[in-house]
Amino acid sequence: MSLRDEVLRANAAFAAEFGGGELARPPARGLAVVTCIDGRIDPLAVLGLAPGDANVLRNAGARVTDDVLRSLVVSRHLLGMRETLVVGHTDCGLEGRTNEELRAGVPGSDGLDFLPFADLEESVREGVRRIRALPLLADVEATGWVYEVETGRLREVETQP
Amino acid sequence: MSLRDEVLRANAAFAAEFGGGELARPPARGLAVVTCIDGRIDPLAVLGLAPGDANVLRNAGARVTDDVLRSLVVSRHLLGMRETLVVGHTDCGLEGRTNEELRAGVPGSDGLDFLPFADLEESVREGVRRIRALPLLADVEATGWVYEVETGRLREVETQP
Repeated sequence: MSLRDEVLRANAAFAAEFGGGELARPPARGLAVVTCIDGRIDPLAVLGLAPGDANVLRNAGARVTDDVLRSLVVSRHLLGMRETLVVGHTDCGLEGRTNEELRAGVPGSDGLDFLPFADLEESVREGVRRIRALPLLADVEATGWVYEVETGRLREVETQP
Repeated sequence: MSLRDEVLRANAAFAAEFGGGELARPPARGLAVVTCIDGRIDPLAVLGLAPGDANVLRNAGARVTDDVLRSLVVSRHLLGMRETLVVGHTDCGLEGRTNEELRAGVPGSDGLDFLPFADLEESVREGVRRIRALPLLADVEATGWVYEVETGRLREVETQP
């Protein structure tokens, strides 16, 4: 069976039992979560949330890029978000690497900024700082966290100056 | 109880039952999913996937931005991804809007490109085209989909020229 057929079959089963049709567009908990694309992270399960509770933003490295800031502005001003968790994770493929190293391993990627980082907690802190520094997000409470993919545990990162 | 305490309590329960410590960093199904931040979308449940199966990318509108392309390059070249699903959804806050309208509603957002779109299926097609056009993703199979938040149903979008 092709992936397409598998997905359609799985979705038919999901839709047959679907109970989420009454959920509203704004996140019910007023929450946004910024995390990595890593498949080992299931943000709702990790945080004890339900579908509809939070906007979920994910990119490689849980980096607070301009595109993440755009999405947070949408979340804040169109969807009523009030609080954002930036959640980095252990064993990230972008931690402890450099662009030079990554480019050498990926032919044709010269000039691409992979957004690697030297230190996980510092990357999380930098993300929180970028959110706090944007006037459009000035009234959002932003906190930083590390998720341990080995244990399932979440711990807060000190982000106060 | 503060949100922080609630999250920590919920995570302690999650970690106590955690069984994902053996999952590997590369997505087991060789899959990436690009979708929106909308809280009503639970990508793994919608697609019948398990934690560890797929890299999950999410931004406002499921738009294939430069940051999404960067994340897909990481997924392809660092994590072995082979196939990408671009999944837009019904009732998106960025559909049928214009930057002018959105900026008028969000004081201080002059000059921000919210990346709104006129037509959902065309936005999905444009995203798939951007993936197919990037040489670094030339061997990735990209397909387009619409998820209906009202019914739980997923349908494919025709993306062949």
